[in-house]
Amino acid sequence: MDGTSITRGIGDDGAVVNIEAGQWVLAADAIGDGTHFRTGVDDLDLIGRKSVAINLSDLAAMGARPRFATLTFNVPVGFELSSLQRLFAGAERVGSEFGLRIVGGDTNVWNGPLTVSVTAFGQVIQEPWFNDGAVPGQCIVVTGDLGGSLLGHHLTFTPRCQFTEHVAKQFAIGAATDISDSLTIDLNRVLERSDCGAVLDLDSIPVAAAAHTMHQQGSGLSPLEHALYDGEDFELVLTVDPEVLARMKTDPQISNRLFNIGVVTEDKGIKDRQGNTVHVKGYQHGDE
Amino acid sequence: MDGTSITRGIGDDGAVVNIEAGQWVLAADAIGDGTHFRTGVDDLDLIGRKSVAINLSDLAAMGARPRFATLTFNVPVGFELSSLQRLFAGAERVGSEFGLRIVGGDTNVWNGPLTVSVTAFGQVIQEPWFNDGAVPGQCIVVTGDLGGSLLGHHLTFTPRCQFTEHVAKQFAIGAATDISDSLTIDLNRVLERSDCGAVLDLDSIPVAAAAHTMHQQGSGLSPLEHALYDGEDFELVLTVDPEVLARMKTDPQISNRLFNIGVVTEDKGIKDRQGNTVHVKGYQHGDE
Repeated sequence: MDGTSITRGIGDDGAVVNIEAGQWVLAADAIGDGTHFRTGVDDLDLIGRKSVAINLSDLAAMGARPRFATLTFNVPVGFELSSLQRLFAGAERVGSEFGLRIVGGDTNVWNGPLTVSVTAFGQVIQEPWFNDGAVPGQCIVVTGDLGGSLLGHHLTFTPRCQFTEHVAKQFAIGAATDISDSLTIDLNRVLERSDCGAVLDLDSIPVAAAAHTMHQQGSGLSPLEHALYDGEDFELVLTVDPEVLARMKTDPQISNRLFNIGVVTEDKGIKDRQGNTVHVKGYQHGDE
Repeated sequence: MDGTSITRGIGDDGAVVNIEAGQWVLAADAIGDGTHFRTGVDDLDLIGRKSVAINLSDLAAMGARPRFATLTFNVPVGFELSSLQRLFAGAERVGSEFGLRIVGGDTNVWNGPLTVSVTAFGQVIQEPWFNDGAVPGQCIVVTGDLGGSLLGHHLTFTPRCQFTEHVAKQFAIGAATDISDSLTIDLNRVLERSDCGAVLDLDSIPVAAAAHTMHQQGSGLSPLEHALYDGEDFELVLTVDPEVLARMKTDPQISNRLFNIGVVTEDKGIKDRQGNTVHVKGYQHGDE
Protein backbone atom coordinates (compact mmCIF):
# COMPACT_ATOMS: atom_id res chain seq x y z
CA MET A 1 0.00 0.00 0.00
CA ASP A 2 1.73 3.16 -1.15
CA GLY A 3 -1.20 5.42 -0.34
CA THR A 4 -1.88 6.40 -3.89
CA SER A 5 -3.53 4.88 -6.92
CA ILE A 6 -4.87 5.97 -10.24
CA THR A 7 -8.62 5.54 -10.69
CA ARG A 8 -8.63 6.87 -14.22
CA GLY A 9 -5.91 8.17 -16.47
CA ILE A 10 -5.56 9.59 -19.97
CA GLY A 11 -8.70 9.83 -22.15
CA ASP A 12 -11.02 12.00 -20.07
CA ASP A 13 -11.06 15.70 -19.18
CA GLY A 14 -8.75 14.90 -16.30
CA ALA A 15 -7.15 12.04 -14.43
CA VAL A 16 -8.56 10.81 -11.14
CA VAL A 17 -6.11 9.73 -8.47
CA ASN A 18 -6.57 8.50 -4.92
CA ILE A 19 -4.33 10.54 -2.70
CA GLU A 20 -3.20 9.92 0.84
CA ALA A 21 -3.55 12.80 3.27
CA GLY A 22 -0.45 14.80 4.06
CA GLN A 23 2.06 17.16 2.56
CA TRP A 24 2.58 17.03 -1.17
CA VAL A 25 4.95 18.92 -3.42
CA LEU A 26 3.92 20.37 -6.77
CA ALA A 27 6.76 21.16 -9.15
CA ALA A 28 6.27 22.65 -12.62
CA ASP A 29 9.03 23.06 -15.18
CA ALA A 30 8.88 23.56 -18.92
CA ILE A 31 11.49 23.14 -21.64
CA GLY A 32 11.52 24.62 -25.14
CA ASP A 33 13.31 23.96 -28.41
CA GLY A 34 16.39 26.10 -28.91
CA THR A 35 16.69 26.88 -25.22
CA HIS A 36 16.80 23.60 -23.30
CA PHE A 37 17.24 21.21 -26.22
CA ARG A 38 17.56 21.20 -29.99
CA THR A 39 15.24 19.08 -32.09
CA GLY A 40 17.10 17.60 -35.05
CA VAL A 41 20.23 17.34 -32.88
CA ASP A 42 19.11 15.83 -29.58
CA ASP A 43 17.38 12.47 -29.41
CA LEU A 44 13.61 12.92 -28.97
CA ASP A 45 13.60 10.19 -26.38
CA LEU A 46 16.14 12.17 -24.35
CA ILE A 47 14.17 15.39 -24.76
CA GLY A 48 11.12 13.64 -23.31
CA ARG A 49 13.34 12.21 -20.59
CA LYS A 50 14.69 15.64 -19.70
CA SER A 51 11.23 17.19 -19.43
CA VAL A 52 10.37 14.75 -16.65
CA ALA A 53 13.84 14.40 -15.09
CA ILE A 54 14.12 18.13 -14.30
CA ASN A 55 10.88 17.85 -12.35
CA LEU A 56 12.07 14.70 -10.59
CA SER A 57 15.12 16.73 -9.59
CA ASP A 58 12.84 19.44 -8.14
CA LEU A 59 10.96 16.83 -6.12
CA ALA A 60 14.28 15.43 -4.86
CA ALA A 61 15.33 18.95 -3.87
CA MET A 62 12.11 19.33 -1.85
CA GLY A 63 12.46 16.03 0.03
CA ALA A 64 9.56 14.46 -1.83
CA ARG A 65 8.93 11.02 -3.34
CA PRO A 66 7.76 11.11 -6.99
CA ARG A 67 4.15 10.02 -7.56
CA PHE A 68 2.24 11.57 -10.47
CA ALA A 69 2.86 13.87 -13.38
CA THR A 70 0.99 15.58 -16.17
CA LEU A 71 2.59 16.49 -19.51
CA THR A 72 1.56 19.08 -22.07
CA PHE A 73 3.17 19.21 -25.48
CA ASN A 74 3.03 22.07 -27.97
CA VAL A 75 4.25 20.46 -31.18
CA PRO A 76 5.01 22.19 -34.50
CA VAL A 77 2.65 21.64 -37.43
CA GLY A 78 3.81 18.52 -39.26
CA PHE A 79 5.36 16.92 -36.19
CA GLU A 80 4.97 13.17 -36.67
CA LEU A 81 3.02 10.93 -34.37
CA SER A 82 6.02 8.60 -34.13
CA SER A 83 8.10 11.55 -32.89
CA LEU A 84 5.51 12.35 -30.25
CA GLN A 85 5.56 8.72 -29.18
CA ARG A 86 9.33 8.83 -28.77
CA LEU A 87 9.09 11.97 -26.66
CA PHE A 88 6.45 10.32 -24.53
CA ALA A 89 8.39 7.06 -24.24
CA GLY A 90 11.42 8.90 -22.88
CA ALA A 91 9.23 10.81 -20.45
CA GLU A 92 7.44 7.71 -19.25
CA ARG A 93 10.57 5.58 -18.87
CA VAL A 94 12.44 7.96 -16.60
CA GLY A 95 9.23 8.48 -14.67
CA SER A 96 8.69 4.79 -14.04
CA GLU A 97 12.34 4.40 -13.07
CA PHE A 98 11.67 6.71 -10.11
CA GLY A 99 8.08 5.78 -9.27
CA LEU A 100 6.42 8.67 -11.12
CA ARG A 101 3.33 7.81 -13.15
CA ILE A 102 2.21 10.04 -16.00
CA VAL A 103 -1.53 10.32 -15.56
CA GLY A 104 -2.62 12.91 -18.08
CA GLY A 105 -1.78 15.72 -20.36
CA ASP A 106 -2.57 17.67 -23.46
CA THR A 107 -1.12 17.91 -26.95
CA ASN A 108 -1.55 20.97 -29.15
CA VAL A 109 -0.34 21.40 -32.70
CA TRP A 110 0.77 24.96 -33.36
CA ASN A 111 2.91 27.30 -35.46
CA GLY A 112 5.82 27.35 -33.05
CA PRO A 113 8.71 25.23 -31.84
CA LEU A 114 8.33 22.19 -29.62
CA THR A 115 7.72 22.79 -25.92
CA VAL A 116 7.11 20.29 -23.16
CA SER A 117 5.62 21.34 -19.82
CA VAL A 118 5.52 18.94 -16.92
CA THR A 119 3.92 19.24 -13.52
CA ALA A 120 5.05 16.62 -11.03
CA PHE A 121 3.52 15.66 -7.69
CA GLY A 122 5.51 14.13 -4.94
CA GLN A 123 4.68 13.01 -1.44
CA VAL A 124 6.81 14.60 1.26
CA ILE A 125 8.89 11.78 2.74
CA GLN A 126 9.46 13.20 6.21
CA GLU A 127 9.59 16.99 6.23
CA PRO A 128 9.74 19.27 3.20
CA TRP A 129 13.22 20.54 2.38
CA PHE A 130 13.07 24.29 1.77
CA ASN A 131 15.64 26.58 0.21
CA ASP A 132 15.60 29.03 3.12
CA GLY A 133 16.70 26.70 5.90
CA ALA A 134 20.47 27.30 5.87
CA VAL A 135 22.04 28.20 9.22
CA PRO A 136 25.56 29.59 9.83
CA GLY A 137 27.97 26.81 10.70
CA GLN A 138 26.28 24.23 8.49
CA CYS A 139 28.30 22.41 5.86
CA ILE A 140 27.48 22.91 2.17
CA VAL A 141 27.27 19.62 0.33
CA VAL A 142 26.78 18.82 -3.36
CA THR A 143 25.85 15.35 -4.57
CA GLY A 144 28.08 15.00 -7.64
CA ASP A 145 30.37 16.40 -10.29
CA LEU A 146 29.66 19.83 -11.72
CA GLY A 147 30.27 21.65 -14.99
CA GLY A 148 30.20 20.94 -18.71
CA SER A 149 26.64 19.62 -18.65
CA LEU A 150 26.03 21.21 -22.05
CA LEU A 151 28.11 18.41 -23.65
CA GLY A 152 25.28 15.98 -22.96
CA HIS A 153 24.81 15.43 -19.25
CA HIS A 154 21.86 17.90 -19.21
CA LEU A 155 19.92 15.23 -21.16
CA THR A 156 21.14 12.12 -19.36
CA PHE A 157 21.63 13.15 -15.72
CA THR A 158 20.26 11.03 -12.91
CA PRO A 159 17.78 12.93 -10.74
CA ARG A 160 18.81 12.41 -7.11
CA CYS A 161 15.55 10.81 -6.00
CA GLN A 162 17.18 7.74 -4.45
CA PHE A 163 19.56 9.92 -2.49
CA THR A 164 16.64 11.97 -1.18
CA GLU A 165 14.57 8.89 -0.32
CA HIS A 166 17.43 7.54 1.75
CA VAL A 167 18.52 10.80 3.38
CA ALA A 168 15.07 12.17 4.20
CA LYS A 169 14.23 9.24 6.43
CA GLN A 170 17.40 9.41 8.51
CA PHE A 171 19.02 12.83 8.49
CA ALA A 172 17.96 16.41 9.25
CA ILE A 173 18.64 18.77 6.37
CA GLY A 174 18.99 22.54 6.68
CA ALA A 175 18.27 23.80 3.18
CA ALA A 176 18.15 22.08 -0.19
CA THR A 177 17.87 22.99 -3.84
CA ASP A 178 18.99 21.55 -7.14
CA ILE A 179 21.49 23.04 -9.56
CA SER A 180 19.57 24.23 -12.56
CA ASP A 181 20.94 27.74 -13.19
CA SER A 182 24.47 27.21 -11.77
CA LEU A 183 26.10 26.27 -8.48
CA THR A 184 26.69 29.92 -7.63
CA ILE A 185 23.22 31.14 -8.63
CA ASP A 186 21.35 28.33 -6.92
CA LEU A 187 23.51 28.35 -3.80
CA ASN A 188 23.24 32.13 -3.64
CA ARG A 189 19.43 31.86 -3.75
CA VAL A 190 19.58 29.52 -0.74
CA LEU A 191 21.90 31.89 1.10
CA GLU A 192 19.87 35.01 0.35
CA ARG A 193 16.60 33.37 1.35
CA SER A 194 18.29 32.08 4.52
CA ASP A 195 19.85 35.48 5.27
CA CYS A 196 23.37 33.97 5.30
CA GLY A 197 26.55 33.83 3.26
CA ALA A 198 29.15 31.16 2.59
CA VAL A 199 32.83 30.41 2.35
CA LEU A 200 33.61 27.91 -0.38
CA ASP A 201 36.60 25.60 -0.44
CA LEU A 202 37.13 25.82 -4.19
CA ASP A 203 39.56 22.88 -4.22
CA SER A 204 36.81 20.62 -2.85
CA ILE A 205 34.31 21.30 -5.62
CA PRO A 206 33.96 18.13 -7.69
CA VAL A 207 34.64 19.11 -11.30
CA ALA A 208 33.13 16.96 -14.04
CA ALA A 209 35.29 15.48 -16.79
CA ALA A 210 33.10 17.39 -19.26
CA ALA A 211 34.18 20.66 -17.67
CA HIS A 212 37.81 19.75 -18.43
CA THR A 213 36.82 18.78 -21.96
CA MET A 214 35.09 22.11 -22.58
CA HIS A 215 38.13 23.94 -21.23
CA GLN A 216 40.44 21.93 -23.51
CA GLN A 217 38.14 22.69 -26.43
CA GLY A 218 38.80 26.38 -25.83
CA SER A 219 35.70 27.47 -23.96
CA GLY A 220 37.66 30.27 -22.38
CA LEU A 221 36.69 29.11 -18.90
CA SER A 222 38.74 27.02 -16.49
CA PRO A 223 37.27 23.65 -15.46
CA LEU A 224 36.50 25.14 -12.03
CA GLU A 225 34.72 28.09 -13.64
CA HIS A 226 32.55 25.63 -15.55
CA ALA A 227 31.71 23.93 -12.25
CA LEU A 228 30.80 27.27 -10.65
CA TYR A 229 28.92 28.88 -13.50
CA ASP A 230 27.50 26.22 -15.84
CA GLY A 231 23.85 25.29 -15.44
CA GLU A 232 21.77 22.15 -15.61
CA ASP A 233 23.96 19.86 -13.53
CA PHE A 234 20.87 18.81 -11.57
CA GLU A 235 22.89 17.76 -8.57
CA LEU A 236 21.51 18.73 -5.18
CA VAL A 237 23.03 21.37 -2.93
CA LEU A 238 22.29 20.77 0.75
CA THR A 239 23.24 22.45 3.98
CA VAL A 240 23.64 20.17 6.99
CA ASP A 241 25.01 20.41 10.51
CA PRO A 242 28.63 19.15 10.71
CA GLU A 243 27.70 16.33 13.10
CA VAL A 244 24.91 15.20 10.76
CA LEU A 245 27.33 15.23 7.84
CA ALA A 246 29.76 13.13 9.89
CA ARG A 247 27.03 10.52 10.38
CA MET A 248 25.97 10.70 6.74
CA LYS A 249 29.54 9.96 5.69
CA THR A 250 29.43 6.64 7.54
CA ASP A 251 26.37 5.54 5.55
CA PRO A 252 27.62 3.49 2.58
CA GLN A 253 24.44 4.14 0.56
CA ILE A 254 25.14 7.86 0.29
CA SER A 255 28.76 8.42 1.31
CA ASN A 256 29.94 8.57 -2.32
CA ARG A 257 27.49 11.42 -3.04
CA LEU A 258 28.69 13.79 -0.33
CA PHE A 259 31.09 16.53 -1.42
CA ASN A 260 31.59 19.07 1.33
CA ILE A 261 32.44 22.26 -0.56
CA GLY A 262 32.18 24.90 2.13
CA VAL A 263 30.44 26.33 5.13
CA VAL A 264 27.48 28.65 5.73
CA THR A 265 28.49 31.95 7.37
CA GLU A 266 26.76 34.90 8.97
CA ASP A 267 28.63 37.24 6.62
CA LYS A 268 26.66 37.73 3.43
CA GLY A 269 27.95 36.89 -0.04
CA ILE A 270 30.04 33.99 -1.25
CA LYS A 271 33.81 34.06 -0.64
CA ASP A 272 36.64 31.61 -1.14
CA ARG A 273 38.95 30.61 1.71
CA GLN A 274 41.28 33.47 0.89
CA GLY A 275 38.45 35.96 1.32
CA ASN A 276 38.01 36.70 -2.38
CA THR A 277 34.48 37.19 -3.65
CA VAL A 278 33.10 34.30 -5.73
CA HIS A 279 30.97 35.82 -8.45
CA VAL A 280 27.41 34.70 -8.84
CA LYS A 281 26.60 33.98 -12.43
CA GLY A 282 25.25 31.24 -14.60
CA TYR A 283 24.82 29.58 -17.89
CA GLN A 284 22.14 31.47 -19.80
CA HIS A 285 19.59 28.91 -20.87
CA GLY A 286 16.82 31.45 -20.77
CA ASP A 287 15.28 30.49 -17.44
CA GLU A 288 14.04 33.34 -15.34
CA MET B 1 -11.66 23.73 7.36
CA ASP B 2 -11.53 22.91 3.69
CA GLY B 3 -9.02 20.10 4.10
CA THR B 4 -6.28 21.78 2.14
CA SER B 5 -3.72 24.47 2.77
CA ILE B 6 -0.54 25.78 1.27
CA THR B 7 2.56 25.36 3.41
CA ARG B 8 4.84 27.04 0.93
CA GLY B 9 4.27 28.55 -2.48
CA ILE B 10 6.27 30.24 -5.21
CA GLY B 11 10.01 30.78 -4.62
CA ASP B 12 11.30 27.29 -4.02
CA ASP B 13 11.84 24.26 -6.27
CA GLY B 14 8.22 23.33 -5.68
CA ALA B 15 5.15 24.27 -3.67
CA VAL B 16 4.17 22.32 -0.58
CA VAL B 17 0.47 21.78 0.01
CA ASN B 18 -1.41 19.91 2.71
CA ILE B 19 -3.84 17.63 1.00
CA GLU B 20 -6.84 15.81 2.36
CA ALA B 21 -7.12 12.12 1.56
CA GLY B 22 -9.46 11.10 -1.21
CA GLN B 23 -10.00 11.32 -4.90
CA TRP B 24 -8.42 14.21 -6.72
CA VAL B 25 -8.58 15.25 -10.37
CA LEU B 26 -5.54 16.43 -12.32
CA ALA B 27 -6.29 18.39 -15.47
CA ALA B 28 -3.62 19.78 -17.78
CA ASP B 29 -4.31 22.09 -20.70
CA ALA B 30 -2.02 24.41 -22.62
CA ILE B 31 -2.75 27.34 -24.92
CA GLY B 32 -0.47 28.90 -27.53
CA ASP B 33 -0.29 32.15 -29.45
CA GLY B 34 -1.89 31.99 -32.90
CA THR B 35 -3.91 28.93 -31.98
CA HIS B 36 -5.93 29.68 -28.86
CA PHE B 37 -5.33 33.42 -28.66
CA ARG B 38 -3.54 36.23 -30.49
CA THR B 39 -1.13 38.46 -28.62
CA GLY B 40 -1.41 42.03 -29.90
CA VAL B 41 -5.14 41.50 -30.44
CA ASP B 42 -6.44 39.80 -27.32
CA ASP B 43 -6.07 41.36 -23.89
CA LEU B 44 -3.20 39.75 -21.96
CA ASP B 45 -5.34 39.65 -18.87
CA LEU B 46 -7.93 37.60 -20.78
CA ILE B 47 -5.26 35.29 -22.20
CA GLY B 48 -4.10 34.54 -18.66
CA ARG B 49 -7.72 34.13 -17.63
CA LYS B 50 -8.35 31.65 -20.44
CA SER B 51 -5.33 29.51 -19.55
CA VAL B 52 -6.83 28.86 -16.13
CA ALA B 53 -10.52 28.91 -17.07
CA ILE B 54 -10.17 26.02 -19.54
CA ASN B 55 -8.72 23.93 -16.73
CA LEU B 56 -11.48 25.02 -14.35
CA SER B 57 -13.88 23.82 -17.03
CA ASP B 58 -12.12 20.43 -17.09
CA LEU B 59 -12.44 20.14 -13.32
CA ALA B 60 -16.14 21.03 -13.56
CA ALA B 61 -16.56 18.34 -16.23
CA MET B 62 -15.00 15.79 -13.87
CA GLY B 63 -17.19 16.64 -10.87
CA ALA B 64 -14.30 18.23 -8.98
CA ARG B 65 -13.91 21.34 -6.85
CA PRO B 66 -10.98 23.58 -7.87
CA ARG B 67 -8.09 23.71 -5.37
CA PHE B 68 -4.58 24.28 -6.72
CA ALA B 69 -2.86 25.05 -9.98
CA THR B 70 0.61 25.44 -11.41
CA LEU B 71 1.38 27.68 -14.40
CA THR B 72 4.28 27.57 -16.81
CA PHE B 73 4.89 30.37 -19.28
CA ASN B 74 7.12 30.27 -22.33
CA VAL B 75 7.48 33.93 -23.26
CA PRO B 76 9.15 35.40 -26.35
CA VAL B 77 12.46 37.21 -25.98
CA GLY B 78 11.70 40.85 -25.18
CA PHE B 79 8.36 40.10 -23.54
CA GLU B 80 7.93 42.73 -20.85
CA LEU B 81 7.62 42.00 -17.17
CA SER B 82 4.49 44.15 -17.02
CA SER B 83 2.95 41.93 -19.72
CA LEU B 84 3.79 38.83 -17.73
CA GLN B 85 2.20 40.42 -14.69
CA ARG B 86 -1.00 41.09 -16.64
CA LEU B 87 -1.11 37.48 -17.82
CA PHE B 88 -0.61 36.31 -14.28
CA ALA B 89 -3.19 38.72 -12.87
CA GLY B 90 -5.84 37.37 -15.25
CA ALA B 91 -4.91 33.81 -14.35
CA GLU B 92 -4.98 34.46 -10.64
CA ARG B 93 -8.24 36.40 -10.64
CA VAL B 94 -10.34 33.76 -12.35
CA GLY B 95 -8.67 31.16 -10.13
CA SER B 96 -9.58 32.95 -6.93
CA GLU B 97 -13.12 33.49 -8.21
CA PHE B 98 -13.56 29.72 -8.20
CA GLY B 99 -11.43 28.74 -5.22
CA LEU B 100 -8.34 27.74 -7.20
CA ARG B 101 -5.00 28.90 -5.79
CA ILE B 102 -1.95 29.22 -8.03
CA VAL B 103 0.85 27.71 -6.01
CA GLY B 104 3.79 27.53 -8.38
CA GLY B 105 5.13 27.61 -11.85
CA ASP B 106 7.96 28.35 -14.17
CA THR B 107 8.75 31.09 -16.67
CA ASN B 108 11.11 30.57 -19.58
CA VAL B 109 12.19 33.17 -22.11
CA TRP B 110 12.62 31.63 -25.54
CA ASN B 111 12.70 32.22 -29.31
CA GLY B 112 9.09 31.26 -29.86
CA PRO B 113 5.57 32.55 -29.38
CA LEU B 114 3.85 32.80 -26.02
CA THR B 115 2.48 29.60 -24.49
CA VAL B 116 0.79 29.07 -21.17
CA SER B 117 0.45 25.60 -19.66
CA VAL B 118 -1.70 25.04 -16.61
CA THR B 119 -2.18 21.98 -14.46
CA ALA B 120 -5.14 22.20 -12.10
CA PHE B 121 -6.00 20.01 -9.11
CA GLY B 122 -9.49 19.56 -7.92
CA GLN B 123 -11.02 17.56 -5.13
CA VAL B 124 -13.75 15.17 -6.23
CA ILE B 125 -16.98 16.50 -4.70
CA GLN B 126 -18.93 13.24 -4.52
CA GLU B 127 -18.02 10.81 -7.28
CA PRO B 128 -15.88 11.56 -10.32
CA TRP B 129 -17.84 12.28 -13.49
CA PHE B 130 -16.37 10.27 -16.35
CA ASN B 131 -16.95 10.63 -20.07
CA ASP B 132 -17.83 6.95 -20.54
CA GLY B 133 -20.86 6.73 -18.26
CA ALA B 134 -23.67 7.40 -20.75
CA VAL B 135 -26.49 4.84 -20.76
CA PRO B 136 -29.25 4.46 -23.41
CA GLY B 137 -32.39 6.27 -22.33
CA GLN B 138 -30.54 9.07 -20.54
CA CYS B 139 -31.21 12.66 -21.51
CA ILE B 140 -28.44 14.77 -23.03
CA VAL B 141 -28.14 18.14 -21.35
CA VAL B 142 -25.99 21.17 -22.12
CA THR B 143 -25.52 24.02 -19.67
CA GLY B 144 -25.70 27.04 -21.96
CA ASP B 145 -25.72 28.68 -25.37
CA LEU B 146 -23.46 27.30 -28.07
CA GLY B 147 -21.69 28.66 -31.15
CA GLY B 148 -19.79 31.74 -32.22
CA SER B 149 -17.36 31.59 -29.31
CA LEU B 150 -14.60 32.85 -31.59
CA LEU B 151 -16.14 36.34 -31.41
CA GLY B 152 -14.91 36.63 -27.84
CA HIS B 153 -16.70 34.19 -25.59
CA HIS B 154 -13.72 31.80 -25.73
CA LEU B 155 -11.83 34.37 -23.62
CA THR B 156 -14.61 35.42 -21.26
CA PHE B 157 -16.70 32.27 -20.67
CA THR B 158 -17.73 31.25 -17.19
CA PRO B 159 -16.42 27.81 -16.25
CA ARG B 160 -19.33 25.82 -14.84
CA CYS B 161 -17.78 25.17 -11.45
CA GLN B 162 -20.74 26.48 -9.45
CA PHE B 163 -23.11 24.32 -11.45
CA THR B 164 -20.96 21.27 -10.75
CA GLU B 165 -20.60 22.07 -7.06
CA HIS B 166 -24.36 22.22 -6.74
CA VAL B 167 -25.25 19.25 -8.95
CA ALA B 168 -22.56 16.85 -7.71
CA LYS B 169 -23.89 16.90 -4.16
CA GLN B 170 -27.49 16.15 -5.10
CA PHE B 171 -27.85 14.42 -8.44
CA ALA B 172 -26.47 11.30 -10.08
CA ILE B 173 -24.79 12.02 -13.41
CA GLY B 174 -24.22 9.47 -16.18
CA ALA B 175 -21.40 10.97 -18.21
CA ALA B 176 -19.95 14.46 -18.39
CA THR B 177 -17.51 16.43 -20.49
CA ASP B 178 -16.99 20.03 -21.50
CA ILE B 179 -17.27 21.48 -25.00
CA SER B 180 -13.81 22.34 -26.13
CA ASP B 181 -13.60 20.93 -29.66
CA SER B 182 -17.31 21.21 -30.57
CA LEU B 183 -20.64 19.89 -29.35
CA THR B 184 -20.60 17.09 -31.90
CA ILE B 185 -16.96 16.09 -31.34
CA ASP B 186 -17.15 16.15 -27.55
CA LEU B 187 -20.56 14.48 -27.38
CA ASN B 188 -19.40 11.88 -29.88
CA ARG B 189 -16.41 11.08 -27.67
CA VAL B 190 -18.77 10.48 -24.75
CA LEU B 191 -20.99 8.26 -26.91
CA GLU B 192 -18.12 6.24 -28.37
CA ARG B 193 -16.49 5.69 -24.98
CA SER B 194 -19.89 4.70 -23.58
CA ASP B 195 -20.63 2.40 -26.53
CA CYS B 196 -23.84 4.30 -27.36
CA GLY B 197 -25.32 6.71 -29.87
CA ALA B 198 -27.74 9.62 -29.67
CA VAL B 199 -30.75 11.27 -31.23
CA LEU B 200 -30.56 15.06 -31.05
CA ASP B 201 -33.54 17.39 -31.05
CA LEU B 202 -31.86 20.08 -33.12
CA ASP B 203 -34.59 22.63 -32.35
CA SER B 204 -33.75 22.37 -28.65
CA ILE B 205 -30.08 23.25 -28.99
CA PRO B 206 -29.53 26.68 -27.42
CA VAL B 207 -27.85 28.82 -30.07
CA ALA B 208 -25.74 31.75 -28.90
CA ALA B 209 -26.37 35.26 -30.23
CA ALA B 210 -22.77 35.22 -31.47
CA ALA B 211 -23.61 32.26 -33.72
CA HIS B 212 -26.32 34.37 -35.36
CA THR B 213 -23.88 37.27 -35.68
CA MET B 214 -21.27 35.11 -37.40
CA HIS B 215 -23.94 33.79 -39.76
CA GLN B 216 -25.06 37.34 -40.56
CA GLN B 217 -21.46 38.34 -41.13
CA GLY B 218 -21.30 35.74 -43.88
CA SER B 219 -19.57 32.84 -42.16
CA GLY B 220 -21.23 30.44 -44.57
CA LEU B 221 -22.66 28.42 -41.67
CA SER B 222 -26.15 28.59 -40.24
CA PRO B 223 -26.46 29.60 -36.58
CA LEU B 224 -27.30 25.96 -35.73
CA GLU B 225 -24.21 24.75 -37.57
CA HIS B 226 -22.11 27.12 -35.47
CA ALA B 227 -23.69 25.61 -32.35
CA LEU B 228 -22.94 22.08 -33.55
CA TYR B 229 -19.45 22.59 -34.94
CA ASP B 230 -17.78 25.58 -33.27
CA GLY B 231 -15.35 24.89 -30.46
CA GLU B 232 -14.46 26.46 -27.14
CA ASP B 233 -17.95 27.03 -25.79
CA PHE B 234 -16.83 25.47 -22.51
CA GLU B 235 -20.35 24.53 -21.54
CA LEU B 236 -20.83 21.11 -19.99
CA VAL B 237 -22.54 18.20 -21.73
CA LEU B 238 -24.10 15.76 -19.29
CA THR B 239 -26.17 12.62 -19.60
CA VAL B 240 -28.74 12.03 -16.85
CA ASP B 241 -31.66 9.71 -16.23
CA PRO B 242 -34.99 11.36 -17.20
CA GLU B 243 -36.30 11.21 -13.63
CA VAL B 244 -33.13 12.86 -12.34
CA LEU B 245 -33.47 15.58 -14.95
CA ALA B 246 -37.06 16.14 -13.86
CA ARG B 247 -35.88 16.69 -10.30
CA MET B 248 -33.02 18.92 -11.45
CA LYS B 249 -35.49 21.12 -13.32
CA THR B 250 -37.28 21.89 -10.07
CA ASP B 251 -34.08 23.21 -8.48
CA PRO B 252 -34.01 26.99 -9.00
CA GLN B 253 -30.22 27.15 -8.62
CA ILE B 254 -29.62 25.17 -11.79
CA SER B 255 -32.89 25.06 -13.71
CA ASN B 256 -31.82 27.88 -16.03
CA ARG B 257 -28.74 25.91 -17.07
CA LEU B 258 -30.51 22.75 -18.24
CA PHE B 259 -31.07 22.43 -21.97
CA ASN B 260 -32.27 18.95 -22.87
CA ILE B 261 -31.06 18.49 -26.44
CA GLY B 262 -31.60 14.78 -27.02
CA VAL B 263 -31.44 11.24 -25.78
CA VAL B 264 -28.80 8.52 -25.59
CA THR B 265 -29.58 5.50 -27.78
CA GLU B 266 -28.28 2.00 -28.24
CA ASP B 267 -27.85 2.69 -31.97
CA LYS B 268 -24.43 4.15 -32.65
CA GLY B 269 -23.82 7.50 -34.27
CA ILE B 270 -25.61 10.80 -33.86
CA LYS B 271 -28.91 11.34 -35.67
CA ASP B 272 -31.56 14.03 -35.69
CA ARG B 273 -35.22 13.25 -34.95
CA GLN B 274 -35.85 12.65 -38.64
CA GLY B 275 -33.16 9.97 -38.71
CA ASN B 276 -30.60 12.04 -40.61
CA THR B 277 -26.96 11.67 -39.60
CA VAL B 278 -25.54 14.64 -37.70
CA HIS B 279 -21.95 15.05 -38.83
CA VAL B 280 -19.22 15.08 -36.25
CA LYS B 281 -16.82 17.90 -36.87
CA GLY B 282 -15.31 20.86 -35.14
CA TYR B 283 -13.63 24.16 -35.16
CA GLN B 284 -9.96 23.58 -35.90
CA HIS B 285 -8.03 25.31 -33.18
CA GLY B 286 -5.20 22.84 -33.46
CA ASP B 287 -6.09 20.66 -30.50
CA GLU B 288 -5.49 16.97 -30.96
